[in-house]
Formats: sequence, structure tokens, C-alpha cells
Amino acid sequence: MSAKNAKATVRKVLDRAKAEKRSALTAPEGKLVCDAYGIAVPKEGIAKSAADAAKLGKKVGFPVVLKIVSPDILHKTEAGGVVVGIKTPQDAQKAYATIIANAKKYNKKAKIVGVQVQQMVGGGQEVIIGAVTDPSFGKMIAFGMGGVLVEVLKDVTFRLAPVTRDEALGMLDGIKAAEILKGVRGGKGVNRASLAALIENVSKLIADFPEIAEMDLNPVFASEKSAVAADVRIILDWQPAVQRYRPKTEEINRAMNRIMRPKSVAVIGASAEDGKIGNSVMKNLINGGYEGNIYPVHPSASEILGRKVYKSVLDVPGEVDVAVFCIPAKFVAAALTEVGEKKIPGAVLIPSGFAETGNVAGQKEIQEIGRKYNVRLMGPNIYGYYYTPQNLCATFCTPYDYKGGAALSSQSGGIGMAIIGFSRSAKMGVSAIVGLGNKSDLDEDDLLTFFEQDDNTKVIAMHLEDLKDGRSFAEVAKRVSKKKPIVVLKAGRTDAGAKAAGSHTGALAGNDKIYDDVLRQSGVIRAPGLRDMLDYARGLQKLPAPKGENVVIITGAGGSGVLLSDACVDNGLHLMKMPADLDAAFRKFIPPFGAAGNPVDITGGEPPTTYKNTIRLGLEDPRIHALILGYWHTIITPPMVFGKLVVEVVNEMKAKGIEKPIVASLAGDVQVEEAAEYLYDNGIPSYAYSTEIPVAVLGAKFRWARGAGLVK
Amino acid sequence: MSAKNAKATVRKVLDRAKAEKRSALTAPEGKLVCDAYGIAVPKEGIAKSAADAAKLGKKVGFPVVLKIVSPDILHKTEAGGVVVGIKTPQDAQKAYATIIANAKKYNKKAKIVGVQVQQMVGGGQEVIIGAVTDPSFGKMIAFGMGGVLVEVLKDVTFRLAPVTRDEALGMLDGIKAAEILKGVRGGKGVNRASLAALIENVSKLIADFPEIAEMDLNPVFASEKSAVAADVRIILDWQPAVQRYRPKTEEINRAMNRIMRPKSVAVIGASAEDGKIGNSVMKNLINGGYEGNIYPVHPSASEILGRKVYKSVLDVPGEVDVAVFCIPAKFVAAALTEVGEKKIPGAVLIPSGFAETGNVAGQKEIQEIGRKYNVRLMGPNIYGYYYTPQNLCATFCTPYDYKGGAALSSQSGGIGMAIIGFSRSAKMGVSAIVGLGNKSDLDEDDLLTFFEQDDNTKVIAMHLEDLKDGRSFAEVAKRVSKKKPIVVLKAGRTDAGAKAAGSHTGALAGNDKIYDDVLRQSGVIRAPGLRDMLDYARGLQKLPAPKGENVVIITGAGGSGVLLSDACVDNGLHLMKMPADLDAAFRKFIPPFGAAGNPVDITGGEPPTTYKNTIRLGLEDPRIHALILGYWHTIITPPMVFGKLVVEVVNEMKAKGIEKPIVASLAGDVQVEEAAEYLYDNGIPSYAYSTEIPVAVLGAKFRWARGAGLVK
Repeated sequence: MSAKNAKATVRKVLDRAKAEKRSALTAPEGKLVCDAYGIAVPKEGIAKSAADAAKLGKKVGFPVVLKIVSPDILHKTEAGGVVVGIKTPQDAQKAYATIIANAKKYNKKAKIVGVQVQQMVGGGQEVIIGAVTDPSFGKMIAFGMGGVLVEVLKDVTFRLAPVTRDEALGMLDGIKAAEILKGVRGGKGVNRASLAALIENVSKLIADFPEIAEMDLNPVFASEKSAVAADVRIILDWQPAVQRYRPKTEEINRAMNRIMRPKSVAVIGASAEDGKIGNSVMKNLINGGYEGNIYPVHPSASEILGRKVYKSVLDVPGEVDVAVFCIPAKFVAAALTEVGEKKIPGAVLIPSGFAETGNVAGQKEIQEIGRKYNVRLMGPNIYGYYYTPQNLCATFCTPYDYKGGAALSSQSGGIGMAIIGFSRSAKMGVSAIVGLGNKSDLDEDDLLTFFEQDDNTKVIAMHLEDLKDGRSFAEVAKRVSKKKPIVVLKAGRTDAGAKAAGSHTGALAGNDKIYDDVLRQSGVIRAPGLRDMLDYARGLQKLPAPKGENVVIITGAGGSGVLLSDACVDNGLHLMKMPADLDAAFRKFIPPFGAAGNPVDITGGEPPTTYKNTIRLGLEDPRIHALILGYWHTIITPPMVFGKLVVEVVNEMKAKGIEKPIVASLAGDVQVEEAAEYLYDNGIPSYAYSTEIPVAVLGAKFRWARGAGLVK
Repeated sequence: MSAKNAKATVRKVLDRAKAEKRSALTAPEGKLVCDAYGIAVPKEGIAKSAADAAKLGKKVGFPVVLKIVSPDILHKTEAGGVVVGIKTPQDAQKAYATIIANAKKYNKKAKIVGVQVQQMVGGGQEVIIGAVTDPSFGKMIAFGMGGVLVEVLKDVTFRLAPVTRDEALGMLDGIKAAEILKGVRGGKGVNRASLAALIENVSKLIADFPEIAEMDLNPVFASEKSAVAADVRIILDWQPAVQRYRPKTEEINRAMNRIMRPKSVAVIGASAEDGKIGNSVMKNLINGGYEGNIYPVHPSASEILGRKVYKSVLDVPGEVDVAVFCIPAKFVAAALTEVGEKKIPGAVLIPSGFAETGNVAGQKEIQEIGRKYNVRLMGPNIYGYYYTPQNLCATFCTPYDYKGGAALSSQSGGIGMAIIGFSRSAKMGVSAIVGLGNKSDLDEDDLLTFFEQDDNTKVIAMHLEDLKDGRSFAEVAKRVSKKKPIVVLKAGRTDAGAKAAGSHTGALAGNDKIYDDVLRQSGVIRAPGLRDMLDYARGLQKLPAPKGENVVIITGAGGSGVLLSDACVDNGLHLMKMPADLDAAFRKFIPPFGAAGNPVDITGGEPPTTYKNTIRLGLEDPRIHALILGYWHTIITPPMVFGKLVVEVVNEMKAKGIEKPIVASLAGDVQVEEAAEYLYDNGIPSYAYSTEIPVAVLGAKFRWARGAGLVK
């Protein structure tokens, strides 16, 4: 069937269902829809009498299943409306009578269309294909193993619909029990092409028809020869989801570039009084060293911190790029209208008192004003934002000192403060820190779009509790992550966490499995916790991209070598199998009882030269793509001696054009902390007393590089 | 059958196999053994001819399975030696002929005993029961789901054999797919008593007969009515494992109390020369403030650091409790003999150059000397040991300053140094730090036994790469963990890590699943990484034991509340469902838009009194058993104000006899670090910029308390 005819056929079925105000399709309707989209289902027909049933049985071929067809009976088995394994015309007649009797008993008023006589399929593996409509991601297609595997072990994988054939094939490998599909215990593998086609076609169907809310193909029998859906259930929803406002990329960047790199800032509610937010923001703009124009706005003051005050933004001379709001919620709407009239592209809404306190109407009001005047809104309910290349600190916190490549954002103010504190404490190089708060308008996609083309940003790290428009985020992230690593800390991973998220910002934290699959598919590195997100943001900007998968551990502490190896496996890193010639080359530098192989265990009592020689070899040999160093504090090679020799070798190699990602784990007394800091400052993410964190940071870099296609 | 008769029956079967130098039992022998131990297997007989097969089929009841019986054919299916689903005498005759022909083709020389005719069992769930002999833990019994679940998903659980009926029942719940056994998708649950009996009886059998090295009951058909092993495979090993030397508890403590709390220490190889280990040890003993006698031993010196030098320990007047060796490996044996002659109970062997460098003979030699003179050996290849209550620093590191309740040990020197560095940096209260190195004699059980009765020790944390005698460790740990938390960092968890362990100390890192199950069964808290072990050791000694499962989060940052909730789920903590009256009581203290429930979200802008009131309520209400605090840095309640108010409320409650475990997560600028330190010093494990670590520490305390039976 042509795509056009297929659509027309389904449209007709759906229109009838809509006219009848039904929220589900009948089995025969389901078959029509499936046939139109090339979704393989068993041969079948509708019997209107017992004789019919016998005749149809012969036509589709015994054995057959008989099932009640009634728009009023959804749970057919429960209603006694299914008889399986019918092998003769006589039995088909008997079964017909039984089913009709049961159906009438189950629901006297049920409209009975007939009894479906269906070819009985079976054998091979039972799998499930399903579709759901996620409030954030829209149409999702799901695939899992049938029976207990999906029910008990929740072994299922999701993708944004529609999927390509390749993506569908990828789903077959996306479940834990993937091996089963390839055939185990002497069993035959399934026909992967047929199964993938089934997934692809279902995904197209649900993408084409928004009103198909849910779909279940359960079970699908996938054998060596074919994949056939034995049962199809289609649930309809006639309420289309509201689309979130989403400008074009150029439009986003036009506004974002003015907001993030403003030539002039108005502070609405600027104050001369210590302790007021409007005072903190003014001070931070001035003391932070922002060199653009700063226009305090206040209804009665004349001068604040030496700057002329304006009664309204409308009075400010010339263009203003961003207005920072430091006034109570109830005054925001009026001031925002003036901002709109002044054609200011961005409003930074620090005030709380909107959706997060139940004031949903107030939030809607400002959203509408924003849309009317094309003002992009940051917040409300935020601490503000930093953009360090401009020395811009439009927050009530304090200016930030370390410029660098990490752009961070948070949905929560508390987490934002933790980002600032950690970054300052760890001397993390930061380009921007942005509070997104209630995300009434600006959200993660807008930030991604801006940071993508911002040369000051090398890595993007985001704390979020939900995605207002997950589909759009996925699309943007997929593109941006090819260029820059994106780290996401998704809060509300667990049911308990999601519940807390619900009561916090009214965020609907979706099924975490969906988030997990979509984020991975989009090339996003998911941080398991807050500290991990911060460590990744700090470390990823330091590491060059690896060019291949071979990781080598060089360690002075055998014990660290074991733990570092564990950490490699935990983080999906590939410990290189050491080629014989390279093994021999390493052995030349280490004591006879040291262990080459991988880890290269140089043993504990070695002088600086041994570290130096082995690290140099590790960098020089092109078969090695990344190094993990394990240092053991001894008097022969003290911590800072180790730190300096590593930096020396790395710089020597850099001069020769060799750059590889290196991380280090330092075991020793407190002096190793200084050495770790020195190494970090010199581009080598290093940690005292931890074998896990440096390897996790390296693992995150590899995950990114693989997604971006950089690792061969 | 009486236990005595059962044993005699099996003994007879095994003796015959031994006489025939076989490493496996035949199927009929397996049946004899199973029958003796009440292990349910199908009815069966051996056919010697095709006619026999038909007759036997009728006797055991069709359908039947026919299987080749030959001591030379272990993999019957591979050999074409199995035909299933035989329903008639005619088919049985035919199958007999086929099997014999196939067997001859497969192995011309195979001795063919006959063909087994077996009742065909099936239906219900396929499960697997197995047994292995682990080099460290000895006889282990395994249980898992059959088919793909065990093969693809490795869903299996282990216990030390023998198990009690209750332990066997516990195994049914120990697999991920446990729900399946209870009946899902309308299926019936299995007969748990029958299945547990099967496990119990297999475990008894393998415990009674060390020569049964491995056993496979695969598949076992577990139905609503019964559990029957359809196939049994028994592998024999006639080489008994060598038992490790293991003194009685009193003997261990007699020696350990003298070693850990010595009245006098001899330093063999003491030196006046800076940089020598014998000099460092002398200095550390003296400068650390050790008040017992210190006897330097050196062949030629007369005075070292103002102390009289002895040519041999034999010249030292009076009793010596411990001798610290600071001499090269080749001189150890002779000096150790003198230590033995002097009847010194403990030798601390710092020198390397033994098994870890391939000198296995040298290590064996000193082990034998140790046993001959009853000298317990610590090491070799270690940094030494600390016991802070005695100001004892018998190491080449430096004295340790913070006395407290954590006793730590490490198998690796590097990890030991990391323990010292972290502990010092974090001001962790420590009672002892012990290097175990090659564990030629003293190992984790000896330490556990000592720390159990050492009042200065409140928590025990151990880094280990293997357990030389895992069974003994499990036994001791099970007892000690009822009194004090035991934290274990098991290195070599993964295949890669285990390989590194193998090349490091010749340690045989066992199957990690076995370690994981046994450690859990022994009440041990397993730390996922080095930093976790250190954080647990630091925090667990601070927290009182919880008396129940109800955890409440009180947070100023809603965002932290979400992440803390996620962390609770990750760490197996139970977020209390807030009773209506308590919810109302909390609401009295917080703004109307704040969220009660759990987390209690007091919102960000609140003054100290709100924190105070809610924390006090959380402590006072007896339904709450533990608190997690989320702090958000604001100018209204600055970090140290928060720190002090928490300590104030906690002390106020303590005065009333109320003590509950509390941890805190602080989000904010760098000032929160000082507040976190203040809180930690005052008994509340607190972390800046992390929502995961404080909850993990609390989770570890709960895991311990549950195992020790303290949580109701």
C-alpha cells in the first residue's frame, strides 16, 4: 500500500472511532490499521455464526484462536471471550457458542460484533512492542522481551518515534537479554530484519497519528522466519497535547547572544539598601567588573551606587539587552510590559512567588506578556546568571573568579548555589552559570543552542528535574553533543525522587527509563549524582578527546592497580591487551618482580625515572589512547616530584604534537593533595584517596567521544 | 533413610568411583546418592537392550526420556545420547538403538553401561541448583532460574553450605527474578517448601563429602506440587584442600592483645641513619609518644636515638611483646628464629621480597618458623601498624594524630597510605591502621577477633583483595557484625580487577558474586569504592544506631530534596509516609507554599527558627527514626548559623535522652564547607556540594543495624 493510501485507510478507521467517541479500536479495526502499515498480524476473519467460525478456521488454517469482538469488552480473557488451540471445525463451532454465552454473562449490554477467528501463531521468542505518549517526549516506541522478562525484570528499551530501520535494529541490542534474540542454548536466533521492520512500522504509525496514545503488540512471536504480532491493542486520545513555544535556532541565538553578552543591563528594583536583592545585583554587576552600561530602575530613588536611576525602563536612553527583575512577584507583570515596549529581548526573573508557590495564573500572565512582546524569560524563581567572559554576575550571590570552559545550569536554586560553591572551591573554569527555575520560557534547549556556538564554552553541565519539551531537547542535544560534551544530572530518577520533584516545582518527572534511553541516544552523559556532575564539568574540559579505546594503567601501587581496573570496567573503559613488544618495552624500565601487562605495575620503591620512562612510553606508543596513573607516596618519589615529572613528560610530548587524556589517582599522606591540585591545574584530572573518581571522569570523556564519533 | 545410612550409601558409591579413579559419577550413581539424601529425581531404570527400554518405559510411565549412560560421555546431548518425549514402547526401542549408535560414533572407546529410561518431568518453572568448591569459601550452594535467565542474565545466588531450611527459603528470594517463583501472569507459584528442601539436602550432601567438588541439578522442575531434578551431574575431586592454620579465638586474642597493645617493642634492624626504614620506625615509636619499652636491635651499633642497642633479641632483658622487622628479606628467617626462641608472640614483617616478588619459598620458610615457635606474623610486605590508644606507630610513615573509633586495615601498602592520608585530612577518629600485605599468617579474621573485644574500636573497615580463608572470615564477621559495623572494600570485583589482583600478590580473587553474597550474609557492609570505605569508616562511628526504618528529609532547598530522595532509594532507605497529624504539625512551622509530606520542604528563604522547629519536631516524634537535612545557603540563615542551630537542637534532645542518626547535605557557596566540618565534628556526618555521600553513609548505618537486628 502506498504511504498515502495507508494514511487514508487509518484516517478512515480513526474518524469512525472518533465519531463513535471511542477510546480504543476493535481487533478488526486494529488489523486494518496494521495491514495498512505493514505490521504483520495473523490471518483472520470475523465469524457471525458458529458455522462461519468453522469455515473461517479452515480458511486461515488450523490451529486457530477464537476471540470475542466487542467495543465494550477490552479485557477479553477476563470476560471468558478467548478460546485457544482449536484444531477442528467441530471445536470451532463449540468455542463460538461458549464465547458468545460468556460475553453475554460478562456484560449484558455489550454490543457483540462477532467472534474473531485467528490463525494461531507461536514458537520462537515472545517479545513485546509498544508505544506510549510521554508528556515530555511525545510518541515513544518500546521494545522488550515478552513474558516474565518484561514483567518481572522490566527489561525494556525506548526510542523517540519514528525510528529508522537502523535504530530499530539498535533496539534489539538495547535490552539486557539481547543475547536471547541471537539464539542461546542451541535455539535459533530471530529474524532481526522482520522484527526491526515491525518496530519501524509501528513507530511510523504512532508518529503519523497523534491520536494514537498507546499501542501494545503483546505478544509478538519472533522466530527464525518471521515476526508476527499475535495481539494488538490500540488506545486513542482525542485531546491533542499543547505544543510549547519553540523559536527557530537563529531566533534563539539572536536573543540569547544579547542576553548572555549584553552591552547594557537594566536592574528593575535596584536598591541602595544593603541586604536587598536589588542591591546585591547592582553590587555584583559593578564589583564583578562588568563593563557594559548598568541602568538602575526604581520609582523614587535618584542615584544608586553612583549610577543615575530611571523611573521606568522606558526612560532609559538607547538600547537595553537584558532586564534583571528584583521586585516582588505582584509587580512583575507591569514592569515586564514596559520591558516589552522597550523591545528588550531578555527578562531575568529572580522573584519567586509564581508556579512554585501555586501561583500558576501569575506565571501564565507573564508568559503571555513575554510572547506578546517577544521577550524571552529566564526563570522566574532563580538566583540569576553568570557569564564570565563578560565579567557578568547578574545574581544575588557573589562574582565568580575562575574563567574557563564549563557552562552550568540548574533548575533549582539550592543546586545552583552548590554549583557555585563547588566550582569556586575546586577552582573550576566556568564560562556561565544559569538558573532556570520554573522555566516559564527559556529552558535547556535555548541554553544548549547558545552554548553550541559560544567559543568560551567547552563543556555543558545541566541539573534538571524535568524537560518541558524533551523531544526538542533530544534533537538539539543530539546535534550539540557531537561538538561539546553535555552532562546531565536528572533529579527525580527514582519514584521517591520524582514524587519530591512533583511537590517542588510542579515538574512532571517522567518514567526514568525513558529519560535514560533518550539521553543516551542524544549523546548526553548522564551523571549519577551531583558531585559526579561537578567532577565531570571540571574534568572534561581539561582532557583532550581520546582517539581510540585502548586504556593503559601505570601504577606504583599494585593495590591501586586492582581498584583502578575495577573502576575501568565499571566505567566501560577498555583495558588494552598489552602487545608482546610493548610489554617487553615496559619491562625494561621496571624491576623484574614488577608486573607488566595491564596494569603496568612499576612497584612501590621506584625513583622518578621509572615513572617518567613508563609514562613517556605510554604517551609515545600510538597503540595506547589514554593513561590512568596510580601514584604511591614514597620518600624516593615524593608527591610533588611525581606531580612535576608527569607535567614535564606531558609537556615534552605536547611539544611533539602528542596529546592523550590522562587522569591520576594519588595514594599517600596529606602531601598528595597538593600534588593532585598541581596536576589538575596542569590539565591532568587527579584525585587524592580515590581510585574511582578519576576513572569516572575519564569514562565520561570516552562516552562523549564515542557518541561524537571521535573514537575509532 | 537415617543420616548414618545415607552417609554410608554415598560413601560406598564414592569409594567405588575413587577406586576406579573417576572424576564423575554416572547417572545411576547420581540417583543412588540423591535418593540417599532425599534429593527428588525422576523415576528411572537402566535398559541394557531395546526390549528393556520398552519395558522400563511402561514401568516408570510414559512419556520418558532416554539417555546414554557412560562414564566417558559427560556431555550427553552433544554426543547425541539423549532422546526426549518418547510416548510408546515402540519409540523407546527405536530411541535405544539410535542412542547406542550415536554414542559409539561419538567416542569409539566409550564404556557403555546402558541407556537410562527416565520419567519425563516438566511443567512449572525451570530452576537450577548447583554446588561449587570455592578456593576461599569452600563448599558453596547456588540457586538460580533455569534457562536463559541464568545463562544470559546470570541471575544466581550463593550461600555457604550447608544451609538451614530458612536459609534455603531465603535463597528463593535472593534472585532478581524471585517474583516468578511466587507466580506471575496468572501462573501458579512453586512449592517453596519442596524447593527449599531440595536446596537444603544438596547443601548437606556436599558439606558431608569434601570430595564432591561440583554438582549441577539442571534443570529442576519446580511446580505447584513438587520440585524434581531432571538431571544431576556430580564432579569429584580426590585432592583435599589444605586447611589454613586457624587458632582458637582465645589464642588469637592472647597473641593479638600483646601485639596490638605491647608493653615492649623490639626493632630488628633499627638504624641511626636518616631515610632508613629502621630509623623511621624508631623515630615514629619515640615521637609518636609510645610509652612502653623500645629495644633497638642491630649487630654493631651501640646506641640509636639515645636507646641502648642489642645485638639480638635474645639479649634483650625481660619480655618482649612484638618485634618489628626492618631488615632485608634474606635476613628475616634467622632473626625470626631468634624471635621465636625469645618467645615473642608477634613479628611485624615490613620487608618486601617474598611471595609478591615470586619468592614463594622464602615466604613458606618464615611461615614454618612462625608455626614452629608460635609467633604470629603480620605481613610481610607492609608499612607496619598503628594502635592509637597506645600512641603506637610501628610504621615507616608518620604518627597519627586523631584518636577515635575506626580500625582500618589494608592488604596493599598504597591503599594503606591513602587510608592514612585521607584519615588525617578528614580528621577521622582512628583506633588502629594495620597493613596485612601478603597475609602469610595474620589476616582479617585475626583482626576482627581482636577488634571485637577492643573497646577503643567502634567500626572496622578493611581493604582486601582476597580472603585466604573466606569461610572462617564469614563465621567471625557474622558474629562481630552483630556488635560493630564491618565495612569491606573488596578489590578485584571485576574480571579485569581480579586479573590485576592475580598479578599483584598472587591473590586469587574469587567469583565476585560469591564474595558479594557471602559478605552480605555475614552482615558486612560492602563499600563500592575506596572513598566510600573511608567515608563510611569516618561516618559510621559518629551515628547512633537507628531504631526503626522511618527516614524523614527536612530541606531548605527543594532541589536538594529531590536528589536526597533519589539517594534514599539508591541506598535502600525508607522514606516515611508522613502521618496526617505529623504533616499538620510540620506545616505549622513552614510557609503555606512549602511542602510537607516527605521531604519536608521548608523553602529557601526561612529564618533559623524554621530549621530549628522542624528539626526538633523530627527528633521528638517517636515515629521518625532518622533525619536527613538539606541546607540551602541564604543570608537569612547563613551556613554557620545553620551548623550551630543543628548542634544546639541535637544537644537539647540528647539531654532528654533522644538520639537519632542525622546526616546533612549543604548546598551553597564555599562557606558551607566550614559549617559541614563543624557539624561533622559534632557528630553529624555532613557534606558540602553532595546529596549522595551523606545519604550513602546513613544507608550504610541502616544496612548494619538491620543485620545486627537493631531496626524493628
